[in-house]
Amino acid sequence: MIALMSPPELEAALRAVGAERYHDRHAFHGLLHGGKLTRSQVQAWALNRYVYQAHIPLKDAALIARCYDPALRRAWRSRLADHDGDDMREGGIARWLRMTDALGLDRDLVVSMRRALPGTLFAVDAYVRFVAERTLLEAVASSLTELFAPKIIAERVEGMLANYDFVDRDALAYFTPRLTEAPQDSAFALDYCQRHADTVEKQQQVIDALKFKCAVLWSMLDALYVAYVEPGIVPPGAFTP
Amino acid sequence: MIALMSPPELEAALRAVGAERYHDRHAFHGLLHGGKLTRSQVQAWALNRYVYQAHIPLKDAALIARCYDPALRRAWRSRLADHDGDDMREGGIARWLRMTDALGLDRDLVVSMRRALPGTLFAVDAYVRFVAERTLLEAVASSLTELFAPKIIAERVEGMLANYDFVDRDALAYFTPRLTEAPQDSAFALDYCQRHADTVEKQQQVIDALKFKCAVLWSMLDALYVAYVEPGIVPPGAFTP
Repeated sequence: MIALMSPPELEAALRAVGAERYHDRHAFHGLLHGGKLTRSQVQAWALNRYVYQAHIPLKDAALIARCYDPALRRAWRSRLADHDGDDMREGGIARWLRMTDALGLDRDLVVSMRRALPGTLFAVDAYVRFVAERTLLEAVASSLTELFAPKIIAERVEGMLANYDFVDRDALAYFTPRLTEAPQDSAFALDYCQRHADTVEKQQQVIDALKFKCAVLWSMLDALYVAYVEPGIVPPGAFTP
Repeated sequence: MIALMSPPELEAALRAVGAERYHDRHAFHGLLHGGKLTRSQVQAWALNRYVYQAHIPLKDAALIARCYDPALRRAWRSRLADHDGDDMREGGIARWLRMTDALGLDRDLVVSMRRALPGTLFAVDAYVRFVAERTLLEAVASSLTELFAPKIIAERVEGMLANYDFVDRDALAYFTPRLTEAPQDSAFALDYCQRHADTVEKQQQVIDALKFKCAVLWSMLDALYVAYVEPGIVPPGAFTP
């Protein structure tokens, strides 16, 4: 029989999932921050990753749309503000578009999402549906990849600034607020999961939700690798440098 | 052949729908603000109407969850703040519960929604699904009953204060912010519909969405009337005074 984990044990189990499955371990991430990609390959990454960015507020609203707890809705609403902005500040999506601008991508092309890889679209769609359709606990837990975001962001930003002359600090402005937003969000979500996963079954659901989300991010890098690195065959209709 | 309406013509057509179908014309509204109801009947109204209030943020989040336009999402997000509150102010749902408290209703009973009328639950559910499933234009248009809210709120508040000794201004605090929120929201939604209903078919969809929403509000008062006024037979399981 499996025993119920204490809150610190559950956190340790979740961090173990990240250590094994988070996309900082993917070969494409190594190439990206290690300065091994061409400008075109970085363009392909930014254009595809935009699809993920553009759907984050939709998945967060889908969570709010099924949540009868005003306190959880209020807390989760800050994620909408982080990505869509407000009267005082630019949101994450607008900042991502500053990066695609800086990389020389046509903004309408990026926003249209028409040239994204099928693998990107399927993975993002699976994530949005997961949040809309699974239990609220699983929906919250699927956000827990943010536990691991500060490390990958630091690697990405420093690596890209050091290695690419076509990228400057302003182009990477997206990432700076994420260094404070992601830890706040993940601390809230982790605490929620620790408090609400009060059976062995629910704790397993939380762990599986995080594994699922890691797979979403991982498969987005798989799709980029196959299309733009090795063997480098771009699917018909997708972005060609 | 039907001609495309100008923006003012469309507004006039929408206001004509309200003049004919808004629930200020329902007999139950007349009884409520005319002081003709007992405290128990006012309790039944407040308890059932809570179901509607509790679902408003969910339907607004459902709209955001299907909207790829960050500007529309940002504007619509203010409705979530109005109902759920933020660090600075109480939201509409909390204010509604102050009224049910003042009416002597048990808060857990109200929040559980277990004793609401089936007709209330069905109408509210139909509204949430309409917003989640119809076109974005129809979803926006279904909010346009707010065009008519200030009048009914003024009637309700003044009538209830004048006629019921068990209601005071604090109990009706829900309505005061709505007098400024609803006109801002409806002006935005009307402008959106005027700009986006650019075919005869879409203009008809906008009008039909408002008719649908009027029917939602109307049928909630029908359910109250039948159960608690005439013939006054409470469905099994529903709130009994």
